[in-house]
Amino acid sequence: MISVVDRLRQVLPGRVDTTDAARADARADKSGHAASGMPLAVLYPESVADVQAIMRIATETHTPVVPRGAGTGLAGGANTGAGALSLSLTRMNRVLEVHPDDLIAVVEPGIINAALNEALRPHGVWWAPDPASREISTVGGNIATGAGGLLCAKYGVVRDAVLGVDVVLADGTLIHCGKRTVKGVAGFDLTSLLIGSEGRLGVIVGATLKLRRTVSGTTCTVTAVFSSVRDAAAGASAVTAAGIQPAIMELMDATSLDAVHRLLELDPPTVGASQLTIQTDGVAATEEADAIAALLTARGAEVAVTDDPDVGTELLRIRRSMHPAMETLGTTLIEDVSVPRSRLADMFDEIARIERAYGVTIPTVAHAADGNLHPNFVFDGQDVPDHIWEAADDLFTSALRVGGTLTGEHGVGVLKSRWLKAELGDAQWQLQQRVMRAFDPAGILNPGKVFAS
Amino acid sequence: MISVVDRLRQVLPGRVDTTDAARADARADKSGHAASGMPLAVLYPESVADVQAIMRIATETHTPVVPRGAGTGLAGGANTGAGALSLSLTRMNRVLEVHPDDLIAVVEPGIINAALNEALRPHGVWWAPDPASREISTVGGNIATGAGGLLCAKYGVVRDAVLGVDVVLADGTLIHCGKRTVKGVAGFDLTSLLIGSEGRLGVIVGATLKLRRTVSGTTCTVTAVFSSVRDAAAGASAVTAAGIQPAIMELMDATSLDAVHRLLELDPPTVGASQLTIQTDGVAATEEADAIAALLTARGAEVAVTDDPDVGTELLRIRRSMHPAMETLGTTLIEDVSVPRSRLADMFDEIARIERAYGVTIPTVAHAADGNLHPNFVFDGQDVPDHIWEAADDLFTSALRVGGTLTGEHGVGVLKSRWLKAELGDAQWQLQQRVMRAFDPAGILNPGKVFAS
Repeated sequence: MISVVDRLRQVLPGRVDTTDAARADARADKSGHAASGMPLAVLYPESVADVQAIMRIATETHTPVVPRGAGTGLAGGANTGAGALSLSLTRMNRVLEVHPDDLIAVVEPGIINAALNEALRPHGVWWAPDPASREISTVGGNIATGAGGLLCAKYGVVRDAVLGVDVVLADGTLIHCGKRTVKGVAGFDLTSLLIGSEGRLGVIVGATLKLRRTVSGTTCTVTAVFSSVRDAAAGASAVTAAGIQPAIMELMDATSLDAVHRLLELDPPTVGASQLTIQTDGVAATEEADAIAALLTARGAEVAVTDDPDVGTELLRIRRSMHPAMETLGTTLIEDVSVPRSRLADMFDEIARIERAYGVTIPTVAHAADGNLHPNFVFDGQDVPDHIWEAADDLFTSALRVGGTLTGEHGVGVLKSRWLKAELGDAQWQLQQRVMRAFDPAGILNPGKVFAS
Repeated sequence: MISVVDRLRQVLPGRVDTTDAARADARADKSGHAASGMPLAVLYPESVADVQAIMRIATETHTPVVPRGAGTGLAGGANTGAGALSLSLTRMNRVLEVHPDDLIAVVEPGIINAALNEALRPHGVWWAPDPASREISTVGGNIATGAGGLLCAKYGVVRDAVLGVDVVLADGTLIHCGKRTVKGVAGFDLTSLLIGSEGRLGVIVGATLKLRRTVSGTTCTVTAVFSSVRDAAAGASAVTAAGIQPAIMELMDATSLDAVHRLLELDPPTVGASQLTIQTDGVAATEEADAIAALLTARGAEVAVTDDPDVGTELLRIRRSMHPAMETLGTTLIEDVSVPRSRLADMFDEIARIERAYGVTIPTVAHAADGNLHPNFVFDGQDVPDHIWEAADDLFTSALRVGGTLTGEHGVGVLKSRWLKAELGDAQWQLQQRVMRAFDPAGILNPGKVFAS
């Protein structure tokens, strides 16, 4: 009998890669974790019809399929193991339509986030979601994980920036969800359901994006150095509680700052100090930056303000280099808890407690304007040691206790699936899987991810 | 055997109304259309446990249940007929929590939209969705229909303003969907799926709302009178294409203006004239109003600007009185199409063509900043005449052709269910019903609504 890979080769000549290198790449993502065994092949469809053909063959042969963007995920959601096909959307990377007057673009899923924004710039519009990976991650991957980023508190997350998705279901059926209009409530909102569905409901083959007009005026950057991370967190909460909406407000603790400064070969930061890096933009940028500076100075921070855009970009590069800096320290288990903004300092207290209790250091950065923390557990080797899982478990339980969630923007994948039931409750966890079976009755799409049994 | 109503009376003493008046009320909503026959009873649960008890009995006895807020819907979604129970959430109307620093409120579903905003005002925050019915509609009803309103283009629709919902499923199970944080992607986004689900997936018994800080500064109101509705529509599109974001931009055609002026006993408007009523707010309100005034004057409109808030409120009262004004003309079939903002004038051309083709007058208002039109078909008697259905069918087909949708904010209910399959496509229409069965396998929640067979 002809193998599934040979069938795919016949249908998709030149779009099936079975080299060891390609298959090994598909096992892992940027989390540093890898699936067991090697996938059957990596597939590179070039059209919606190609994706439909793949899914029809996968359904007929009951072969698992793992959709994949650029493989920059941090939860193992696109990791592909033995017996499965990796479906790469990277060749489907065109911008199909841009309508600046309607603030809409229609794109294929494989376009890189930064490349899309390059293409949009001449039209005076942009797509707001800006995950730290924006230079290397795809729009389709951003949608599949429900990605966030730095600008979210002011400009929204992916859920706020997608009007519609075209999806190929497990059996090869193509459906068009959503709309091209600001408002629209015809039927259930399957678009939102698909955002963040991590490849378990369908393969996203196209998207209608909600754009924003380019923000004009000055961008101001404020840095505020605090002697403790708790004070930095409390300072961030005070900014939002004062009713000021920065475009970006990033918190880095002392260990994170130190690691990044070393990676970028910058002068070492003040020992033990934590930092807020804040940007304001739009018509009130200068007033807002001044108000923030005054507020944080009064709280004991050492504050500097600049309206030089290049200096601002450079200051933010420190934050955007966090992930590569962590990679220099060892293997990381990156947590992604999100808490109500007023509870940020409380969550840092919990992290300090967990560091003491488990004898670990947990370098942490936070999107402080929206209460989203990335505590990094660093260890040696491939497998997460038991005491790290225990510390992570404590961290997640603590986040829930202060009104938070397991994952703000990275998704569940494999690395967080063990905790999902605790957050959703058993009844909702079961219901979500019934919903999943309505899309994929045979369970061939990204099996084992999100819902651990 | 004890009847279902008697069982409910035992479990919910004082919360079961079987009077003719109550049951007759539950047959209809503000669309002017009514279900066939009389419901068994109207139920008034006072707690989540009450709702669970009702749903358990309904499941055991296979009795259809129709959740209902204040009955202000415009698509017949809450209309309850023979053999069914009307489940009114109006007694569950408390504000449970307000956290201004986190911009969150937790409420019961039966609270009136305007009453909620009264309660929030002292905290310096508000909930943005503002359907024209805000003085009489419930927050739960707003969520169940995915309501919009006047302020949506700038401040978002219900989908943008709800972080979580508590839901009782058909079998009485309570689930908590969503989060209390700005970001959160743990599992599928069932919260969004439930927003606009029109009572078919579960009974919304609580909601965590995303608030905004009260907008400070001046509010300016611009009125612009045009000699044709097409010019008014093109003027509105020009405002958004210029990159100006009004808080409100309402278009009223000549027939609508005339009807409202008569209802409110105002001086008659200029014969044949259409009007834009535009509000700008926030720090740039005055500049934006001046820019809009200049732009629309250059396009031939007669323009007036005021920064008197009372005058502004009075001018908007004209728009907010549209629905009662239509009721004075006869029975209405209110359409709710939404189109890309740049296609607003094209859609008014289609309406003019349909008026001629079917020999009908279609008074129309539009939320022009977001491309959402409400063409009103007016007729005598209870039943929609065939030629009105045909004209509505033509209208909807035209809206789809220019990239629009069947319903921007009213929902599908019974009045638009005949067209849903055409918008979603057969495959998605089937999939949505499979999803529905994952929530409600026995089909007892609001049967017959949204999906016409």
